[in-house]
Amino acid sequence: MAYSYAYPHPAVTVDVVVFTADEGALEVLLIKRGEWPHTGKWALPGGFVEIDESLKRAAWRELREETSVQAGYLEQLGAFGHPDRDPRERVITVAYIALVPFDRLRFEAGSDAADAKLFAIDELPELAFDHRKILRRAKERLRDKLDIADIVRQLMPDRFTLSELQRTHEAISNTESDKRNFRKKLKTLEIVEATGENKEGGAHRPARLYRAVKKT
Amino acid sequence: MAYSYAYPHPAVTVDVVVFTADEGALEVLLIKRGEWPHTGKWALPGGFVEIDESLKRAAWRELREETSVQAGYLEQLGAFGHPDRDPRERVITVAYIALVPFDRLRFEAGSDAADAKLFAIDELPELAFDHRKILRRAKERLRDKLDIADIVRQLMPDRFTLSELQRTHEAISNTESDKRNFRKKLKTLEIVEATGENKEGGAHRPARLYRAVKKT
Repeated sequence: MAYSYAYPHPAVTVDVVVFTADEGALEVLLIKRGEWPHTGKWALPGGFVEIDESLKRAAWRELREETSVQAGYLEQLGAFGHPDRDPRERVITVAYIALVPFDRLRFEAGSDAADAKLFAIDELPELAFDHRKILRRAKERLRDKLDIADIVRQLMPDRFTLSELQRTHEAISNTESDKRNFRKKLKTLEIVEATGENKEGGAHRPARLYRAVKKT
Repeated sequence: MAYSYAYPHPAVTVDVVVFTADEGALEVLLIKRGEWPHTGKWALPGGFVEIDESLKRAAWRELREETSVQAGYLEQLGAFGHPDRDPRERVITVAYIALVPFDRLRFEAGSDAADAKLFAIDELPELAFDHRKILRRAKERLRDKLDIADIVRQLMPDRFTLSELQRTHEAISNTESDKRNFRKKLKTLEIVEATGENKEGGAHRPARLYRAVKKT
Protein backbone atom coordinates (compact mmCIF):
# COMPACT_ATOMS: atom_id res chain seq x y z
CA MET A 1 0.00 0.00 0.00
CA ALA A 2 1.25 3.48 -0.79
CA TYR A 3 0.41 6.78 0.80
CA SER A 4 0.42 9.76 -1.48
CA TYR A 5 0.44 13.48 -0.90
CA ALA A 6 0.18 16.57 -3.12
CA TYR A 7 3.54 17.82 -1.87
CA PRO A 8 6.57 16.06 -0.38
CA HIS A 9 6.38 15.12 3.31
CA PRO A 10 9.28 14.45 5.65
CA ALA A 11 9.48 11.40 7.88
CA VAL A 12 9.48 12.09 11.62
CA THR A 13 11.37 10.07 14.20
CA VAL A 14 12.02 10.29 17.92
CA ASP A 15 15.32 9.62 19.71
CA VAL A 16 15.87 9.21 23.42
CA VAL A 17 18.93 10.19 25.45
CA VAL A 18 18.91 8.00 28.56
CA PHE A 19 21.28 9.33 31.20
CA THR A 20 22.35 7.42 34.28
CA ALA A 21 25.12 7.70 36.88
CA ASP A 22 27.20 4.60 37.60
CA GLU A 23 29.24 5.06 40.78
CA GLY A 24 29.09 8.76 40.03
CA ALA A 25 30.12 8.55 36.36
CA LEU A 26 27.63 10.11 33.95
CA GLU A 27 26.71 7.56 31.29
CA VAL A 28 24.36 7.34 28.31
CA LEU A 29 22.57 4.28 26.90
CA LEU A 30 23.28 3.60 23.22
CA ILE A 31 22.19 0.89 20.80
CA LYS A 32 24.17 -0.66 17.98
CA ARG A 33 22.28 -0.22 14.72
CA GLY A 34 21.24 -3.50 13.10
CA GLU A 35 19.96 -1.96 9.87
CA TRP A 36 20.95 0.44 7.10
CA PRO A 37 21.94 3.27 7.28
CA HIS A 38 24.93 3.44 9.63
CA THR A 39 24.71 -0.33 10.21
CA GLY A 40 26.93 -1.35 13.11
CA LYS A 41 27.35 2.17 14.44
CA TRP A 42 26.18 3.22 17.89
CA ALA A 43 23.16 5.48 18.09
CA LEU A 44 20.49 6.81 20.41
CA PRO A 45 17.53 4.46 20.70
CA GLY A 46 14.62 5.72 18.59
CA GLY A 47 12.54 5.26 15.49
CA PHE A 48 9.63 6.41 13.36
CA VAL A 49 6.57 8.05 14.90
CA GLU A 50 3.33 6.21 14.10
CA ILE A 51 0.82 8.39 12.30
CA ASP A 52 -1.66 8.28 15.19
CA GLU A 53 0.58 8.42 18.27
CA SER A 54 1.89 11.43 20.13
CA LEU A 55 5.59 12.27 20.00
CA LYS A 56 6.15 11.42 23.65
CA ARG A 57 4.30 8.13 23.31
CA ALA A 58 6.48 7.27 20.30
CA ALA A 59 9.61 8.05 22.31
CA TRP A 60 8.42 5.85 25.17
CA ARG A 61 7.53 2.98 22.78
CA GLU A 62 10.73 3.10 20.75
CA LEU A 63 12.87 3.19 23.87
CA ARG A 64 11.06 0.17 25.23
CA GLU A 65 11.21 -1.78 21.95
CA GLU A 66 14.91 -1.20 21.37
CA THR A 67 16.25 -1.36 24.94
CA SER A 68 13.35 -2.67 27.08
CA VAL A 69 13.73 0.44 29.28
CA GLN A 70 10.40 1.86 30.45
CA ALA A 71 11.07 5.53 31.07
CA GLY A 72 9.29 7.21 33.94
CA TYR A 73 9.64 10.79 32.84
CA LEU A 74 10.58 12.00 29.37
CA GLU A 75 11.47 15.63 28.76
CA GLN A 76 11.52 16.95 25.23
CA LEU A 77 14.89 18.35 24.20
CA GLY A 78 13.79 19.66 20.80
CA ALA A 79 13.58 18.96 17.07
CA PHE A 80 16.61 18.38 14.84
CA GLY A 81 15.88 18.83 11.18
CA HIS A 82 18.92 19.47 9.00
CA PRO A 83 17.83 18.44 5.48
CA ASP A 84 20.79 16.08 5.03
CA ARG A 85 20.88 14.42 8.44
CA ASP A 86 19.60 11.07 7.11
CA PRO A 87 20.60 9.43 3.79
CA ARG A 88 17.21 7.68 3.37
CA GLU A 89 14.93 10.69 2.96
CA ARG A 90 14.19 13.94 4.77
CA VAL A 91 13.91 12.85 8.39
CA ILE A 92 13.14 15.27 11.19
CA THR A 93 13.74 13.90 14.66
CA VAL A 94 12.38 15.01 18.01
CA ALA A 95 14.76 14.19 20.85
CA TYR A 96 13.80 13.37 24.44
CA ILE A 97 15.79 13.03 27.65
CA ALA A 98 15.20 10.38 30.31
CA LEU A 99 16.98 10.19 33.65
CA VAL A 100 17.16 6.67 35.08
CA PRO A 101 18.96 5.88 38.35
CA PHE A 102 21.54 3.15 37.79
CA ASP A 103 20.03 0.76 40.34
CA ARG A 104 16.72 0.83 38.44
CA LEU A 105 18.18 0.60 34.93
CA ARG A 106 17.65 -2.80 33.25
CA PHE A 107 18.17 -2.96 29.52
CA GLU A 108 18.58 -5.43 26.69
CA ALA A 109 18.68 -4.91 22.93
CA GLY A 110 15.49 -5.56 20.95
CA SER A 111 13.78 -4.69 17.65
CA ASP A 112 16.29 -3.22 15.12
CA ALA A 113 19.00 -2.90 17.78
CA ALA A 114 21.86 -5.41 17.55
CA ASP A 115 23.23 -4.46 20.97
CA ALA A 116 22.65 -2.02 23.82
CA LYS A 117 25.35 -0.66 26.10
CA LEU A 118 26.18 2.15 28.52
CA PHE A 119 28.97 4.57 27.56
CA ALA A 120 30.70 7.13 29.73
CA ILE A 121 29.72 10.56 28.45
CA ASP A 122 33.35 11.49 27.86
CA GLU A 123 34.25 8.23 26.10
CA LEU A 124 31.69 8.02 23.35
CA PRO A 125 32.16 5.88 20.24
CA GLU A 126 31.50 7.21 16.73
CA LEU A 127 27.77 7.90 16.52
CA ALA A 128 25.22 7.55 13.70
CA PHE A 129 23.43 10.53 12.12
CA ASP A 130 23.67 13.80 14.09
CA HIS A 131 23.44 11.97 17.40
CA ARG A 132 26.66 13.46 18.73
CA LYS A 133 25.13 16.92 18.30
CA ILE A 134 21.91 15.80 19.99
CA LEU A 135 23.89 14.39 22.90
CA ARG A 136 25.85 17.62 23.27
CA ARG A 137 22.61 19.58 23.44
CA ALA A 138 21.18 17.09 25.92
CA LYS A 139 24.17 17.60 28.17
CA GLU A 140 23.76 21.38 27.93
CA ARG A 141 20.13 20.98 28.91
CA LEU A 142 21.11 18.99 32.02
CA ARG A 143 23.64 21.67 32.95
CA ASP A 144 21.03 24.43 32.55
CA LYS A 145 18.21 22.65 34.33
CA LEU A 146 19.54 20.30 37.01
CA ASP A 147 20.79 21.62 40.32
CA ILE A 148 22.25 19.35 43.02
CA ALA A 149 18.81 18.69 44.52
CA ASP A 150 17.46 17.56 41.12
CA ILE A 151 20.47 15.28 40.66
CA VAL A 152 19.91 13.70 44.07
CA ARG A 153 16.20 13.15 43.47
CA GLN A 154 16.18 12.14 39.80
CA LEU A 155 19.50 10.60 38.94
CA MET A 156 21.27 9.11 41.96
CA PRO A 157 20.62 5.52 43.04
CA ASP A 158 18.94 4.71 46.36
CA ARG A 159 22.28 4.74 48.19
CA PHE A 160 25.35 6.67 47.14
CA THR A 161 28.55 8.07 48.57
CA LEU A 162 29.17 11.81 48.67
CA SER A 163 32.15 11.34 46.33
CA GLU A 164 29.83 9.72 43.78
CA LEU A 165 27.34 12.57 44.09
CA GLN A 166 30.12 15.12 43.68
CA ARG A 167 31.43 13.30 40.62
CA THR A 168 27.99 13.27 38.96
CA HIS A 169 27.44 16.91 39.82
CA GLU A 170 30.79 17.88 38.34
CA ALA A 171 30.12 15.93 35.13
CA ILE A 172 26.79 17.71 34.67
CA SER A 173 27.77 21.22 35.74
CA ASN A 174 31.14 21.02 33.98
CA THR A 175 32.83 22.48 37.03
CA GLU A 176 35.14 21.10 39.67
CA SER A 177 34.44 21.74 43.29
CA ASP A 178 36.58 21.46 46.36
CA LYS A 179 35.54 18.43 48.41
CA ARG A 180 35.07 20.38 51.64
CA ASN A 181 33.08 23.19 50.03
CA PHE A 182 30.89 20.69 48.23
CA ARG A 183 30.05 18.92 51.50
CA LYS A 184 29.42 22.20 53.28
CA LYS A 185 26.99 23.19 50.54
CA LEU A 186 25.23 19.82 50.76
CA LYS A 187 24.82 20.30 54.50
CA THR A 188 23.16 23.69 54.00
CA LEU A 189 20.80 22.30 51.37
CA GLU A 190 19.61 19.48 53.67
CA ILE A 191 18.86 17.16 50.74
CA VAL A 192 20.89 14.08 51.74
CA GLU A 193 21.18 12.08 54.95
CA ALA A 194 23.52 9.33 56.14
CA THR A 195 22.05 5.82 56.08
CA GLY A 196 24.41 4.44 58.72
CA GLU A 197 25.73 1.96 56.15
CA ASN A 198 29.09 1.88 54.39
CA LYS A 199 29.89 1.06 50.78
CA GLU A 200 31.45 -2.39 50.43
CA GLY A 201 34.64 -3.17 48.54
CA GLY A 202 37.08 -0.74 46.98
CA ALA A 203 40.72 -0.12 47.76
CA HIS A 204 40.09 2.82 50.08
CA ARG A 205 38.61 2.89 53.53
CA PRO A 206 34.84 2.31 53.51
CA ALA A 207 32.80 5.35 52.43
CA ARG A 208 29.53 6.25 54.10
CA LEU A 209 26.36 5.71 52.13
CA TYR A 210 23.79 8.49 51.88
CA ARG A 211 20.25 8.74 50.56
CA ALA A 212 17.94 11.54 49.45
CA VAL A 213 15.96 13.22 52.21
CA LYS A 214 12.26 12.51 51.65
CA LYS A 215 10.33 15.70 51.05
CA THR A 216 7.78 16.31 53.79
CA MET B 1 2.27 15.62 -9.17
CA ALA B 2 1.90 13.28 -6.23
CA TYR B 3 4.49 12.10 -3.73
CA SER B 4 4.06 8.61 -2.44
CA TYR B 5 5.54 6.72 0.48
CA ALA B 6 5.40 3.14 1.72
CA TYR B 7 3.99 4.30 5.08
CA PRO B 8 2.04 7.41 6.11
CA HIS B 9 4.05 10.58 6.69
CA PRO B 10 3.05 13.57 8.78
CA ALA B 11 3.24 17.12 7.52
CA VAL B 12 5.66 19.39 9.41
CA THR B 13 5.12 23.09 10.02
CA VAL B 14 6.90 25.82 11.95
CA ASP B 15 5.27 28.55 14.06
CA VAL B 16 6.90 31.64 15.47
CA VAL B 17 6.10 33.43 18.72
CA VAL B 18 7.25 37.03 18.28
CA PHE B 19 7.44 38.85 21.61
CA THR B 20 7.84 42.57 21.99
CA ALA B 21 7.39 45.12 24.79
CA ASP B 22 5.28 48.21 24.03
CA GLU B 23 5.76 50.84 26.75
CA GLY B 24 6.56 47.97 29.06
CA ALA B 25 3.59 45.76 28.14
CA LEU B 26 4.52 42.29 26.91
CA GLU B 27 2.86 41.68 23.55
CA VAL B 28 2.79 38.95 20.90
CA LEU B 29 2.39 39.27 17.13
CA LEU B 30 -0.51 37.26 15.68
CA ILE B 31 -1.94 36.87 12.20
CA LYS B 32 -5.56 36.41 11.20
CA ARG B 33 -5.93 33.20 9.19
CA GLY B 34 -7.08 33.76 5.63
CA GLU B 35 -7.53 30.07 4.78
CA TRP B 36 -9.15 26.90 6.06
CA PRO B 37 -8.93 25.57 8.73
CA HIS B 38 -9.74 28.09 11.48
CA THR B 39 -10.39 30.77 8.86
CA GLY B 40 -10.70 34.18 10.49
CA LYS B 41 -9.14 33.07 13.78
CA TRP B 42 -5.94 34.56 15.13
CA ALA B 43 -2.86 32.36 15.07
CA LEU B 44 0.91 32.38 15.32
CA PRO B 45 2.59 33.15 12.01
CA GLY B 46 3.92 29.95 10.44
CA GLY B 47 3.52 27.37 7.73
CA PHE B 48 4.82 24.22 6.07
CA VAL B 49 8.52 23.36 6.01
CA GLU B 50 9.90 22.94 2.49
CA ILE B 51 11.40 19.51 1.94
CA ASP B 52 14.93 20.90 1.46
CA GLU B 53 15.11 23.72 4.01
CA SER B 54 16.14 23.58 7.65
CA LEU B 55 13.54 24.12 10.37
CA LYS B 56 14.99 27.46 11.43
CA ARG B 57 15.18 28.68 7.86
CA ALA B 58 11.50 27.72 7.39
CA ALA B 59 10.57 29.65 10.55
CA TRP B 60 12.46 32.71 9.33
CA ARG B 61 10.87 32.49 5.86
CA GLU B 62 7.29 31.94 7.05
CA LEU B 63 7.55 34.79 9.53
CA ARG B 64 8.78 37.11 6.80
CA GLU B 65 6.16 35.98 4.28
CA GLU B 66 3.22 36.34 6.64
CA THR B 67 4.25 39.43 8.64
CA SER B 68 7.27 40.90 6.78
CA VAL B 69 9.23 40.67 10.06
CA GLN B 70 12.85 39.61 9.57
CA ALA B 71 13.84 37.97 12.84
CA GLY B 72 17.36 38.45 14.08
CA TYR B 73 17.56 35.54 16.46
CA LEU B 74 15.20 32.58 16.58
CA GLU B 75 15.29 30.16 19.50
CA GLN B 76 13.61 26.80 19.18
CA LEU B 77 10.89 26.21 21.77
CA GLY B 78 10.12 22.61 20.80
CA ALA B 79 7.88 20.31 18.79
CA PHE B 80 4.13 20.00 19.32
CA GLY B 81 2.68 16.84 17.86
CA HIS B 82 -0.68 15.82 19.29
CA PRO B 83 -2.23 13.56 16.59
CA ASP B 84 -5.45 15.65 16.46
CA ARG B 85 -4.05 19.16 16.59
CA ASP B 86 -4.88 19.89 12.93
CA PRO B 87 -8.07 18.81 11.10
CA ARG B 88 -6.32 18.55 7.69
CA GLU B 89 -3.94 15.70 8.39
CA ARG B 90 -1.32 14.75 10.95
CA VAL B 91 0.68 17.95 11.34
CA ILE B 92 3.65 18.22 13.69
CA THR B 93 4.79 21.77 14.33
CA VAL B 94 8.12 23.07 15.59
CA ALA B 95 7.75 26.35 17.45
CA TYR B 96 10.32 29.15 17.63
CA ILE B 97 10.61 32.29 19.75
CA ALA B 98 11.79 35.67 18.46
CA LEU B 99 12.36 38.75 20.62
CA VAL B 100 11.99 42.01 18.71
CA PRO B 101 12.31 45.44 20.40
CA PHE B 102 9.19 47.52 19.75
CA ASP B 103 11.08 50.36 18.07
CA ARG B 104 12.47 47.94 15.49
CA LEU B 105 9.25 46.01 14.88
CA ARG B 106 7.61 46.75 11.50
CA PHE B 107 4.99 44.32 10.29
CA GLU B 108 2.27 43.92 7.72
CA ALA B 109 0.15 40.93 6.76
CA GLY B 110 1.18 38.92 3.69
CA SER B 111 0.82 35.48 2.06
CA ASP B 112 -2.09 33.52 3.67
CA ALA B 113 -2.48 36.06 6.48
CA ALA B 114 -5.55 38.35 6.24
CA ASP B 115 -4.27 40.63 9.00
CA ALA B 116 -1.41 41.00 11.49
CA LYS B 117 -1.67 42.62 14.90
CA LEU B 118 -0.02 42.87 18.30
CA PHE B 119 -1.94 41.54 21.32
CA ALA B 120 -1.18 42.05 24.99
CA ILE B 121 -0.13 38.68 26.41
CA ASP B 122 -2.92 38.81 29.00
CA GLU B 123 -5.63 39.83 26.51
CA LEU B 124 -5.39 37.18 23.84
CA PRO B 125 -8.22 36.43 21.42
CA GLU B 126 -9.36 32.88 20.71
CA LEU B 127 -6.49 31.15 18.92
CA ALA B 128 -6.33 28.55 16.14
CA PHE B 129 -5.00 25.00 16.64
CA ASP B 130 -3.02 24.47 19.88
CA HIS B 131 -1.47 27.92 19.66
CA ARG B 132 -2.64 28.94 23.12
CA LYS B 133 -0.68 26.02 24.55
CA ILE B 134 2.38 26.95 22.49
CA LEU B 135 2.15 30.53 23.71
CA ARG B 136 1.90 29.39 27.33
CA ARG B 137 5.04 27.29 26.90
CA ALA B 138 6.79 30.19 25.18
CA LYS B 139 6.03 32.42 28.15
CA GLU B 140 7.36 29.77 30.53
CA ARG B 141 10.54 29.61 28.48
CA LEU B 142 11.02 33.38 28.77
CA ARG B 143 10.49 33.16 32.52
CA ASP B 144 13.06 30.35 32.83
CA LYS B 145 15.68 31.86 30.56
CA LEU B 146 15.53 35.67 30.65
CA ASP B 147 16.95 37.62 33.56
CA ILE B 148 16.75 41.42 33.79
CA ALA B 149 19.99 41.84 31.85
CA ASP B 150 18.65 39.69 28.99
CA ILE B 151 15.42 41.71 28.92
CA VAL B 152 17.35 44.97 28.73
CA ARG B 153 19.62 43.73 25.96
CA GLN B 154 17.17 41.71 23.85
CA LEU B 155 13.69 43.08 24.35
CA MET B 156 13.68 46.72 25.44
CA PRO B 157 13.70 49.54 22.85
CA ASP B 158 16.66 51.90 22.51
CA ARG B 159 15.24 54.24 25.17
CA PHE B 160 12.92 53.21 27.98
CA THR B 161 11.80 54.35 31.40
CA LEU B 162 12.53 52.30 34.50
CA SER B 163 8.78 51.82 35.03
CA GLU B 164 8.52 50.28 31.57
CA LEU B 165 11.44 47.97 32.28
CA GLN B 166 9.91 46.95 35.59
CA ARG B 167 6.57 46.27 33.92
CA THR B 168 8.16 44.04 31.26
CA HIS B 169 10.21 42.22 33.88
CA GLU B 170 7.12 41.59 35.99
CA ALA B 171 5.14 40.27 32.99
CA ILE B 172 7.92 37.82 32.16
CA SER B 173 8.90 36.72 35.66
CA ASN B 174 5.28 36.61 36.84
CA THR B 175 6.25 38.41 40.02
CA GLU B 176 5.66 41.87 41.33
CA SER B 177 8.49 43.87 42.74
CA ASP B 178 8.60 46.91 44.95
CA LYS B 179 9.67 49.95 42.90
CA ARG B 180 12.52 50.92 45.22
CA ASN B 181 13.91 47.40 45.49
CA PHE B 182 13.73 46.99 41.73
CA ARG B 183 15.73 50.19 41.19
CA LYS B 184 18.24 49.23 43.83
CA LYS B 185 18.76 45.89 42.10
CA LEU B 186 19.19 47.61 38.72
CA LYS B 187 21.83 49.88 40.21
CA THR B 188 23.82 46.89 41.51
CA LEU B 189 23.62 45.14 38.14
CA GLU B 190 25.00 48.19 36.27
CA ILE B 191 23.12 47.29 33.10
CA VAL B 192 21.24 50.55 32.41
CA GLU B 193 22.32 54.20 32.34
CA ALA B 194 20.40 57.48 32.16
CA THR B 195 20.40 59.16 28.75
CA GLY B 196 19.75 62.66 30.12
CA GLU B 197 16.49 62.75 28.14
CA ASN B 198 12.93 62.56 29.40
CA LYS B 199 9.96 60.72 27.95
CA GLU B 200 7.54 63.10 26.16
CA GLY B 201 3.80 63.19 26.77
CA GLY B 202 1.80 61.29 29.37
CA ALA B 203 -0.29 62.55 32.25
CA HIS B 204 2.45 62.24 34.84
CA ARG B 205 5.58 64.24 35.32
CA PRO B 206 8.23 63.43 32.71
CA ALA B 207 10.03 60.15 33.34
CA ARG B 208 13.75 59.76 32.70
CA LEU B 209 14.81 57.70 29.73
CA TYR B 210 17.44 55.00 30.14
CA ARG B 211 19.39 52.81 27.76
CA ALA B 212 21.34 49.56 28.01
CA VAL B 213 24.95 49.91 29.07
CA LYS B 214 27.18 48.79 26.20
CA LYS B 215 29.26 45.80 27.16
CA THR B 216 32.94 46.65 27.11
